[in-house]
Amino acid sequence: MGNKISTVINFDWKPDRKNQLPLSKQIVNYITERISRGDWLIGQKLPSQRDLAKTLNVNRSTIIEALSELNSLGIIEGNFGGGTTITNNTWSLLFSAATPNWKSYIESGIHKANFPTIQAINKLEFEENIIRLSTGEMSPDLFPHEMMKKVLGKIPSRAFSLNYIEPLGLLELRKALSNYLKSFELDVTPSQILIVSGSLQALQLVSISILRPNSTVFIEEPSYVKSLHVFESTGMQMKDVPMDENGLIPWMINKSNIKNDTSILYTIPTFHNPTGLTMSLNRRLEVLRWCKSNQLPIIEDDAYRELWFDELPPVPLKAHDSTGNVLYLGSVSKSLAPGLRIGWVAGPEPVVERLGDIKMQTDYGASSLSQWALTEWIESGLYEEHLKSFRTQLINRRNFVLSFLDQYFADLASWNVPKGGYYIWLKLNLSISTEKLFELAINENILINPGNLYSFTKNPYLRISYSYASLDDLAVGLKRLSEIIRSL
Amino acid sequence: MGNKISTVINFDWKPDRKNQLPLSKQIVNYITERISRGDWLIGQKLPSQRDLAKTLNVNRSTIIEALSELNSLGIIEGNFGGGTTITNNTWSLLFSAATPNWKSYIESGIHKANFPTIQAINKLEFEENIIRLSTGEMSPDLFPHEMMKKVLGKIPSRAFSLNYIEPLGLLELRKALSNYLKSFELDVTPSQILIVSGSLQALQLVSISILRPNSTVFIEEPSYVKSLHVFESTGMQMKDVPMDENGLIPWMINKSNIKNDTSILYTIPTFHNPTGLTMSLNRRLEVLRWCKSNQLPIIEDDAYRELWFDELPPVPLKAHDSTGNVLYLGSVSKSLAPGLRIGWVAGPEPVVERLGDIKMQTDYGASSLSQWALTEWIESGLYEEHLKSFRTQLINRRNFVLSFLDQYFADLASWNVPKGGYYIWLKLNLSISTEKLFELAINENILINPGNLYSFTKNPYLRISYSYASLDDLAVGLKRLSEIIRSL
Ligand SMILES: Cc1ncc(COP(=O)(O)O)c(C=O)c1O
Ligand SMILES: Cc1ncc(COP(=O)(O)O)c(C=O)c1O
Repeated sequence: MGNKISTVINFDWKPDRKNQLPLSKQIVNYITERISRGDWLIGQKLPSQRDLAKTLNVNRSTIIEALSELNSLGIIEGNFGGGTTITNNTWSLLFSAATPNWKSYIESGIHKANFPTIQAINKLEFEENIIRLSTGEMSPDLFPHEMMKKVLGKIPSRAFSLNYIEPLGLLELRKALSNYLKSFELDVTPSQILIVSGSLQALQLVSISILRPNSTVFIEEPSYVKSLHVFESTGMQMKDVPMDENGLIPWMINKSNIKNDTSILYTIPTFHNPTGLTMSLNRRLEVLRWCKSNQLPIIEDDAYRELWFDELPPVPLKAHDSTGNVLYLGSVSKSLAPGLRIGWVAGPEPVVERLGDIKMQTDYGASSLSQWALTEWIESGLYEEHLKSFRTQLINRRNFVLSFLDQYFADLASWNVPKGGYYIWLKLNLSISTEKLFELAINENILINPGNLYSFTKNPYLRISYSYASLDDLAVGLKRLSEIIRSL
Repeated sequence: MGNKISTVINFDWKPDRKNQLPLSKQIVNYITERISRGDWLIGQKLPSQRDLAKTLNVNRSTIIEALSELNSLGIIEGNFGGGTTITNNTWSLLFSAATPNWKSYIESGIHKANFPTIQAINKLEFEENIIRLSTGEMSPDLFPHEMMKKVLGKIPSRAFSLNYIEPLGLLELRKALSNYLKSFELDVTPSQILIVSGSLQALQLVSISILRPNSTVFIEEPSYVKSLHVFESTGMQMKDVPMDENGLIPWMINKSNIKNDTSILYTIPTFHNPTGLTMSLNRRLEVLRWCKSNQLPIIEDDAYRELWFDELPPVPLKAHDSTGNVLYLGSVSKSLAPGLRIGWVAGPEPVVERLGDIKMQTDYGASSLSQWALTEWIESGLYEEHLKSFRTQLINRRNFVLSFLDQYFADLASWNVPKGGYYIWLKLNLSISTEKLFELAINENILINPGNLYSFTKNPYLRISYSYASLDDLAVGLKRLSEIIRSL
């Protein structure tokens, strides 16, 4: 299995300059202690000499001294320039055979590790000075901070305690949502809504609650969910469904892959991640018709709906669903704040109850602080007020990025003009490896999401997001990125 | 499989008295529409006539009229007194074979449904006028509402946006915890801490990240986790470990069940749920020694530690763990607020990283609003201030309940005097079915947790909690419960 022991150790510690012990000795003691206590394991790597010196705030010569002592103790091994690896935690016989074989536990766990690129992105996003050209989040500048203050101020007058809540989630929030969703022409009662900790969790719940190993999940090619193992880790098979400019093409679904009562279609019909495409009204009806006649249920992931620019997108598939075929997923992660970790599933009551029952066994429900906050956001009207100004700012950002693409990428790539959402799906003209590009860009402190994260086949795409980086960073980053590409 | 379609339908609707249509006609239309749209499914039950009349706020005769029309349309069937079941959603041929066979999806999902008793408890807890004698939560009266106001007021000056955060959780919170845990004599760095959405989620993550189907999980007999399927649903086998008054007895673990690198021990050494017992210092050292020599890793669930009464409990197993054998779980669900949904895992860095990587694929992390709130609780000192007064109030409640037990249960049962935590493990002298008792008590609006929820064998125990119900309710509830038992 691909679940490797994490490579590089984290130091949350610095030697004490007031201590009498020499710095290098302190470092040796600290490392030895951490290893002997089983906090760090055989197989883990130490940071490079340069990084160690920086992190511990000492001279490189101090590091070299410490490493050679550790080496002569037989605790670490390796060439000191590149990788130094922990090789021994049993120099004291007292402890032999004591630490469990965690390596084996980690390697044999059921769920698959994130793709290395995703793991790298998850960490690099929190480094300083990195320009994030692909991040699927709202820029911190755009966060409605003053409104949040108001919202938080209101919570204590409604939430008199923060106890466990109902399996489906806070009733007040489900009522507010049932009402709010009417604006999308959805008619769902509070009992048909399950509050989840973000819509990704809804997918996780679907995969463990209503699918079984070897179920088929049909997925757009490309699709955001391919960057995760949420279906694969529980043994489902993912099958590609091609898209054209009107969205996924249902009649291209291979009917022989639809196994009775074990298949499902996952789609992001509105401002699709990563392509930015929106399914046309006609196609929506065709997809519904096709799925009904094949009794194929649909998961409609509608996280970006509210982020339209010049005109409203067609109403959700769910609004046309007269026979309970669609499980509808919503989220405020893209429209307001992913840190709330609030999304919802709306669908047939027994299905929603089943998902809620499993959610209770998974984490006893979503944060009720977050649920109260969102209730207040929606009921006060602040949510819609925020959306209005957020949309305007997103259009400006899109236009800003488009102008830079025109300037720097006209001969390098082609792209769509998104009508909403966060993303531009940039197709490079040259056949260069986007994974290679990812690494070269990181060296220049630029973070990009290569297209192969969203596809099972190699492809010449990058997902560019205009939602996150500051305008300055977007300008600098795109220019530098174009230069890297040119240099190839 | 035991995943049945949920039985009774929820009505979030009432007929409109201003509407020209007769009430019974409105009811027929509403039900027909919901069924035809697939919101409700074949096999679901309607509430009883009495409940329907109450919920819809109409006369019973109106209900009878509506139900007979639905019956003659072939939509429902059954004796109208007891169970009326939806039997048909295809009276219009237009819709035939359209709705997916959700029943089959639900029944074949991987995860097991909650036990019916737990499902019932999860719902009954939100009914009005029910006396909750077993609920493992803090009484809403005890919630530090004024302090929460202060805490929420501070968040906006620290959280300038609420975006996705690092895989291990908010660094500020991990630092605050790393520091706070020193008071339990734990020495863990922020990189060794993963923030989870409650400690139940930590168990879920353990089961999918470092265990595999057929792994053995050793569990105290009795234990809180037996009321869940968190390990079983992913194919692990649970094996009982007996307890005495000093805690679990490690040498009673059947060594032949320890499969290499696929077994783990789960324990609640401090103010155990449900027995209230605390493992002695000596036993802690023995458990550690035994597990080390058998290379058996330990999950230490320490959710109740801070709720001690007259003296501090022995420090955690983790504090004596010099070889990385222990994964330490903490939570503020019992000490502060389960609705925050914040817990943590501390252990060897690579294990914690692995769990964090899988958490990212499950729900992208815990609510950052909750994480900021807890950071502020801890750093401001309000958390410890709250704990002081909470402990005093819990002691009073324990004493109050003990006095009522003396009064009403002296000849009916025996019990322990807990030194901390929430629970009294009440052993009934008579051999009556506690499941039967559960039902009889519900008829009298009293909710109890029978001991068989925590055990794979029938037993004469009830878990009584002094933490939740009001003092009045505790008094009334215990008296009435004793009367029910006497009547048997
Ligand atoms: C289509 C889509 N669905 C769901 C999510 C995740 O949302 P949440 O934060 O609600 O889990 C994303 C985030 O990138 C997304 O693009
Ligand atoms: C021993 C124990 N661990 C964990 C939990 C669940 O805690 P959390 O709310 O942190 O998931 C409970 C709740 O009853 C418990 O008794």
